[in-house]
Amino acid sequence: MKAAGIIVEYNPFHYGHLHHLNETKRQSKSNVIVAVMSGPFLQRGEPALVDKWTRTKIALTQGVDIVVELPYAFATQKAETFATGAVALLNELKVNTICFGSESGDISAFEEMVERRRIHEDTFNTVVKETVALGKSYPQAIAAAWQAISQSSTPIDLTKPNNILGYHYVEAIHHLQSEMLAMTIQRRGADYHDQTIADHHFASATSIRNTLFHNEEDNLFEKLNQVMPAGSLHYINQYRELYGLWHHWDDYYPLLKYKLMTTATDQLKDIYECEEGLEHRLVQSDQSSSSFTGFIDDVNTKRYTKTRLQRLFAHIITNAGKKVMKKADPSNPPYIRLLGMSKQGQQYISTIKKQVNIPLVTNTPSFSHPLLDLDLTAQHVYRWPAFIVNSQHAPNDEHKRYPLRYDEKTGTFQ
Amino acid sequence: MKAAGIIVEYNPFHYGHLHHLNETKRQSKSNVIVAVMSGPFLQRGEPALVDKWTRTKIALTQGVDIVVELPYAFATQKAETFATGAVALLNELKVNTICFGSESGDISAFEEMVERRRIHEDTFNTVVKETVALGKSYPQAIAAAWQAISQSSTPIDLTKPNNILGYHYVEAIHHLQSEMLAMTIQRRGADYHDQTIADHHFASATSIRNTLFHNEEDNLFEKLNQVMPAGSLHYINQYRELYGLWHHWDDYYPLLKYKLMTTATDQLKDIYECEEGLEHRLVQSDQSSSSFTGFIDDVNTKRYTKTRLQRLFAHIITNAGKKVMKKADPSNPPYIRLLGMSKQGQQYISTIKKQVNIPLVTNTPSFSHPLLDLDLTAQHVYRWPAFIVNSQHAPNDEHKRYPLRYDEKTGTFQ
Repeated sequence: MKAAGIIVEYNPFHYGHLHHLNETKRQSKSNVIVAVMSGPFLQRGEPALVDKWTRTKIALTQGVDIVVELPYAFATQKAETFATGAVALLNELKVNTICFGSESGDISAFEEMVERRRIHEDTFNTVVKETVALGKSYPQAIAAAWQAISQSSTPIDLTKPNNILGYHYVEAIHHLQSEMLAMTIQRRGADYHDQTIADHHFASATSIRNTLFHNEEDNLFEKLNQVMPAGSLHYINQYRELYGLWHHWDDYYPLLKYKLMTTATDQLKDIYECEEGLEHRLVQSDQSSSSFTGFIDDVNTKRYTKTRLQRLFAHIITNAGKKVMKKADPSNPPYIRLLGMSKQGQQYISTIKKQVNIPLVTNTPSFSHPLLDLDLTAQHVYRWPAFIVNSQHAPNDEHKRYPLRYDEKTGTFQ
Repeated sequence: MKAAGIIVEYNPFHYGHLHHLNETKRQSKSNVIVAVMSGPFLQRGEPALVDKWTRTKIALTQGVDIVVELPYAFATQKAETFATGAVALLNELKVNTICFGSESGDISAFEEMVERRRIHEDTFNTVVKETVALGKSYPQAIAAAWQAISQSSTPIDLTKPNNILGYHYVEAIHHLQSEMLAMTIQRRGADYHDQTIADHHFASATSIRNTLFHNEEDNLFEKLNQVMPAGSLHYINQYRELYGLWHHWDDYYPLLKYKLMTTATDQLKDIYECEEGLEHRLVQSDQSSSSFTGFIDDVNTKRYTKTRLQRLFAHIITNAGKKVMKKADPSNPPYIRLLGMSKQGQQYISTIKKQVNIPLVTNTPSFSHPLLDLDLTAQHVYRWPAFIVNSQHAPNDEHKRYPLRYDEKTGTFQ
């Protein structure tokens, strides 16, 4: 069996993801697809639209064979940590190839960039440090550093989120001294940042989310049907019918407000990424905004990107402390949490099981680790708004969950 | 000017309270009534039906001249701490007489009890300790200790909540070596614990709350009109129209759940009254109950009374830590927070101002103290459910509040 690895958030799963999935199978000539997926909170510090179990269901029915969770401590992080954690998990799972989507579709350009940075590592780091010290944001500092070590233009545009991640995937493979191959597939249609659905087949996840939250109900599904497989739309719709919502930061704002109201600055300082006096800024901020969007606009400064603040806010509501988060090493994930498998996936796991050096967690109470505790807590917090909608939905049953088992022959879950 | 002090919660203000207020004036021959009132969370660990500002309005329009807040650190406590804190504030405010309601109406019986316990202090404390060590609840231990130092029956029944408080008021006066006189007025009609409105004029606050929460809307106000002054009913009704609710522990259950989901046991242990391994019991409890009532029944044991647990839960959601709470000395309140005054009350304050040894706080930012911070936090947390009902109600504007000023001649607030 030959396995290819992909790194996904599926927020939500659309035709672009299906294209990536099918091309990965075709181009890598693999018969097993292993996906590392962010759990409840995503790389940009946002809650996923629907929970990780629903996104796992969608992944399995669309052709993924194994879904494992990227631990919170690596998922809700800057690109480098996110990428390294995900690549390390795929490495442990013995995939042959990692295949990611990018704007350029040219893997040699990524390899060239990694090599260039390796050679000029010191200069690069110095420029980042100096630029941050000037009060610029971290992404701005990274851009300046690339400029400093590039004679002319860089072969890939590193302001594009998918290119940044791709760069770090390739770098992580080198860093881990892994034998995995890197492949890239050119993305189709929409730009990552597109706000509205333009193309009739390929749309960005951002534009789909905007449509989900802001479109009138009457032609919502008609619109979405054009850009998402029916199966994906079905599960997303089912989720809202059951839990009464698609998750949005606005739903967590009452918790963030509560935490800021009741947490002294010296306790806030223990939260990961609460640095450089941000705790004072947060506590002193008026907090009179009635919505999260208003609040983040109030707190925002040139120095901190919206993404950085969203991640910090996720850490605040999940109580992700410095003590645990700073110890988490993305090159050495301490476990692999299985979220779901097809029959093919199960078979693959049984062939590689003996070579996997870290616990394969299928039953959370059987294994204990501070990062897994954080995953459970993050999932409980994630589900909290559903409890507000309907108190019958106890948010804290994550420890009772087992991986989903999908039979791809019959198209049913067991 | 002659001032009498009363200690109240007004949850809600009813004809029994009005009777107590008028009889206090008449029997003590005072022309100023000073009320020390619990703030957002009450002695039994419950949120007040309506906020302290509304209860202050009601008190002023019903004949109280000065309302000051009993700090959270003394209010949400066992009877002894509650009583001592309140009596110490009245002592600072130079009232001549403290007048409390009781079942017996005989002040000499209270004096006799205080004297008896003073003489047998050692025996009393030993029996309490031993009985608690046997796994009995604190109130059971207190009852056993009284029995131990009483030849036959005690002159007052100390299983009645108002008698317990009365006893501690008298004891606190002795303890503070105050010159204040103690007086008691026999309560009319209902028993404190009555669950339903029986008498047509005097009803217990408990029965009124039950009616407010469980009665059908159509004849609710008809029923309440019989047992509450129209002015009290008016403000209570106005509060719900504005904020969309009367506060109940159920409204705070999402916060309690959230805190228990995200707080490690070693952090929980820092919360006041989280003793004897209760933190493990709370975190390990299934928490699958959909309501607070169900949850407290799950956690409840013979050892802890419902009241003790409710107080602990209030401390958990307000983040009232051991460090601050254990330092709080009810005999020495560090400030007097003024919530409201009539013209008469203002005049009284100006005559005694120079003799008051602790800050009279009218503007919270002008004075800082950990106990005042806790009062502000408790009020913010108290108002949080109103934010859930309507996000336009920012819960954290307490620091902008000034005392209410009431003109009793014109019946208007300024």
